Amino acid sequence: MSNPIRVTVWHEYRHEHTSDEVKKLYPDGMHMVMKAAIEEYLGAQVVVRTATLDEPEHGLTDEVLADTDVMTWWGHCAHAEVKDEIVDKVQKRVLEGMGLIVLHSGHYSKILKRLLGTTCSLRWREAAEREIIWCVNGGHPIADGLEDEKFELEHTEMYGEYFDIPAPDEQVFISWFEGGEVFRSGNCWTRGKGRIFYFRPGHETFPIYYNKNVRRVLANSVKWAAPRSSAPVRLDAPCIKEPLAPIAAKHEVDQSLHEH
Amino acid sequence: MSNPIRVTVWHEYRHEHTSDEVKKLYPDGMHMVMKAAIEEYLGAQVVVRTATLDEPEHGLTDEVLADTDVMTWWGHCAHAEVKDEIVDKVQKRVLEGMGLIVLHSGHYSKILKRLLGTTCSLRWREAAEREIIWCVNGGHPIADGLEDEKFELEHTEMYGEYFDIPAPDEQVFISWFEGGEVFRSGNCWTRGKGRIFYFRPGHETFPIYYNKNVRRVLANSVKWAAPRSSAPVRLDAPCIKEPLAPIAAKHEVDQSLHEH
Amino acid sequence: MSNPIRVTVWHEYRHEHTSDEVKKLYPDGMHMVMKAAIEEYLGAQVVVRTATLDEPEHGLTDEVLADTDVMTWWGHCAHAEVKDEIVDKVQKRVLEGMGLIVLHSGHYSKILKRLLGTTCSLRWREAAEREIIWCVNGGHPIADGLEDEKFELEHTEMYGEYFDIPAPDEQVFISWFEGGEVFRSGNCWTRGKGRIFYFRPGHETFPIYYNKNVRRVLANSVKWAAPRSSAPVRLDAPCIKEPLAPIAAKHEVDQSLHEH
Amino acid sequence: MSNPIRVTVWHEYRHEHTSDEVKKLYPDGMHMVMKAAIEEYLGAQVVVRTATLDEPEHGLTDEVLADTDVMTWWGHCAHAEVKDEIVDKVQKRVLEGMGLIVLHSGHYSKILKRLLGTTCSLRWREAAEREIIWCVNGGHPIADGLEDEKFELEHTEMYGEYFDIPAPDEQVFISWFEGGEVFRSGNCWTRGKGRIFYFRPGHETFPIYYNKNVRRVLANSVKWAAPRSSAPVRLDAPCIKEPLAPIAAKHEVDQSLHEH
Repeated sequence: MSNPIRVTVWHEYRHEHTSDEVKKLYPDGMHMVMKAAIEEYLGAQVVVRTATLDEPEHGLTDEVLADTDVMTWWGHCAHAEVKDEIVDKVQKRVLEGMGLIVLHSGHYSKILKRLLGTTCSLRWREAAEREIIWCVNGGHPIADGLEDEKFELEHTEMYGEYFDIPAPDEQVFISWFEGGEVFRSGNCWTRGKGRIFYFRPGHETFPIYYNKNVRRVLANSVKWAAPRSSAPVRLDAPCIKEPLAPIAAKHEVDQSLHEH
Repeated sequence: MSNPIRVTVWHEYRHEHTSDEVKKLYPDGMHMVMKAAIEEYLGAQVVVRTATLDEPEHGLTDEVLADTDVMTWWGHCAHAEVKDEIVDKVQKRVLEGMGLIVLHSGHYSKILKRLLGTTCSLRWREAAEREIIWCVNGGHPIADGLEDEKFELEHTEMYGEYFDIPAPDEQVFISWFEGGEVFRSGNCWTRGKGRIFYFRPGHETFPIYYNKNVRRVLANSVKWAAPRSSAPVRLDAPCIKEPLAPIAAKHEVDQSLHEH
Repeated sequence: MSNPIRVTVWHEYRHEHTSDEVKKLYPDGMHMVMKAAIEEYLGAQVVVRTATLDEPEHGLTDEVLADTDVMTWWGHCAHAEVKDEIVDKVQKRVLEGMGLIVLHSGHYSKILKRLLGTTCSLRWREAAEREIIWCVNGGHPIADGLEDEKFELEHTEMYGEYFDIPAPDEQVFISWFEGGEVFRSGNCWTRGKGRIFYFRPGHETFPIYYNKNVRRVLANSVKWAAPRSSAPVRLDAPCIKEPLAPIAAKHEVDQSLHEH
Repeated sequence: MSNPIRVTVWHEYRHEHTSDEVKKLYPDGMHMVMKAAIEEYLGAQVVVRTATLDEPEHGLTDEVLADTDVMTWWGHCAHAEVKDEIVDKVQKRVLEGMGLIVLHSGHYSKILKRLLGTTCSLRWREAAEREIIWCVNGGHPIADGLEDEKFELEHTEMYGEYFDIPAPDEQVFISWFEGGEVFRSGNCWTRGKGRIFYFRPGHETFPIYYNKNVRRVLANSVKWAAPRSSAPVRLDAPCIKEPLAPIAAKHEVDQSLHEH
């Protein structure tokens, strides 16, 4: 049997300290509910730790990063406080193969904008409206276990198009909102060896992470994003002096042109 | 008739000052040869200016940026000298719709890495080897005018896979190298409203920009990347208080949760 | 100046003969209204003819096909009556570079299913509900001229996900429906040298083809799908006996293994 | 533990009967060597059967099809003899979720052309030339276990671009050929719920299916293409009379327009 997937649930963990409403909903923090959701569906296939913004190095030390196969990311009001050097390290780990699951307001995190290269802006409205999340790729492993072609959230914050992201490599979900908007809600990308999934649901004042289908998708996405190839990938721009096949020309390199 | 495409050919313009070999090949700088190539094929459809690293603000003032529909980018030894605030501005313009053509060693430019989110690393070898550039998308406007399914460069620097880029939205060319490598040589992406094309050929000590097919592809890519839609795109994350369709729930927003 | 785009508007043209409601809405047939829409926006850039199911060879003789740069296709109740040999010819022309715009109920046409390889099935409901069509790719030429990030149709037939199509190469529009569904409404694919656009709006008993935005998108899509590359593409599986580069091995071919 | 993947290795199985050279290389048929390769790497994760052209219904009865999770397909000289009704059934199973691995000369099989909608034509040459297969997506599960960024085949039949296929959803391998060509050698698509992988190596007179890396990739692709989602997908174009959200308009449907 293969080793368990090592998951780090990263959470900003601020709203729980400033809002009674959020604290009541998530007394131990949203991260603990996410952790439980992943464990509920993946059991012995995972070992899950958590890390939060206000820990030293945001809880993302080199040891933790090296020991993480998949990271989930929730942030909202404190994106700017995430240190650039930590973002650098997380990006590096994704390109090396670590999976990254970005949730809800994490669309505006430094790490997602860094990896996607766009603003990740969107329209939004908090009006407790109804959301219907349609699956447009039923064969995708992230949809596994859903019992219908759609699932619903009774009250949500709305996120609407235009969502400024690169066209997803795979589109899994598209949301309908009561107020008239649509949104690309479940989006997959590959960057380097790493897999990235953005999943829209998750507002802090609605009980989104207690929803059965949201929990299932979250767990599925962790499984999907786990590294699945040992093939070597070099990201260090090697000069390959010896060709694999003979080259006819004789050529002297002006090394000064390659110095920088 | 539509307005001409306003093109800015950006060039690092350093090798011409330090290497006699490069200076002999490109006495007025590579940018002047690129400019001539674009004008040769697009004529009155374009107005082309140039800008270089050592000009104030690298020649990319707010006025120049606002007046540019498509920018081409060649850099090599001085990527690190490009100021981050200029990169910020170029990125913003791309997302707003400016086309960007990145050439050869520009793969390692700050602007391409910023927009793609990956390292853009690759294998390389300078051995004056033969390259055959195969078209895998003959219907693409960037291939227009090519007379065969491939074209050749007698002596080139080799760039080989793995090229650490997001999977291109459209793949136009794949290169074969005498020494045994392949490379994704003509790659299209869309980011925000902007179109990006990476085109591999272009080493400074080979007469690449005098090659008829390279010149044609360069001009084609400028035409392809020019803005072609006036549709509005909002990148400022607007809160849309008034829904388009009625929302049943009553909901009071805790504004403090949205402050950051 | 380049030659005008030669457009053939193909229409089943049956409902207008059997339904007073449709006839009243489109007294000369839907195809004449589509033709006028394309001419309204593209003027001298196009020459538009029409062809209909009940003409000999469905109006799609070899001469007409050879003289067509872009074909638009509307069908509904008589898909099965389209002859396979005509479908063969249209497919061949698309692979050679002819653009194809498939409209509304044309999703179930033989030609679209042939080119996409899937069932093209979807959910549907005719309840005169409201549709809001969101643009998710504002830089795409098919969105040019739209004045907002969305446009609306007051009363439409609903088409909902799951829409059984290959993931579009480019997604331009996603629809919201009053009754709770979403739909990928403006989808681009490339097959061979040809470009394909599926555009959802168009029910026969609603005045969809009189809508300003629908007309604009239709015209834009014709322009987008027009052939834009003269590069040669061989679809005849040639045996290339003479290599471009020397091959070390000596090898005798057993020709009998290649006979079939 | 999950149920084993039920694999059907389909083989034309004609060359082994007409060519002493092929028979010597594959005395029990190529399919038996493929079966052994899949079992070698996947062991108890799979149960593998074979089926061949000259069996009744080509060995693909309704029972076999219903009992297959992933099918591999090798054909060459007798594509035309595969009955259309069997192709219909295989296509239906793919859309329902069966994985399909198409090998080498299977590029011209009815089933691949049916699913992709293009000619699948390519350039070719049988000159026992060297092939280097580069991985351009090292994080993909199909590349798992490869020890280098490339692998080689000493003598192969050449397949070269332009390969007339839809742009792959994921590109895993690109081949370099000694004689000067390149080829998209490992290509993934999704159609309906099914995953498709085309893998280039495999000529009948070279010992390709004894190559360690080819065998590994074949086994990996079977694992990758196995169904991984139980989510329901409807392909029967249901009319959804009851909306999920209220519709304001009153509307009477003219049923005659929906009859066909």
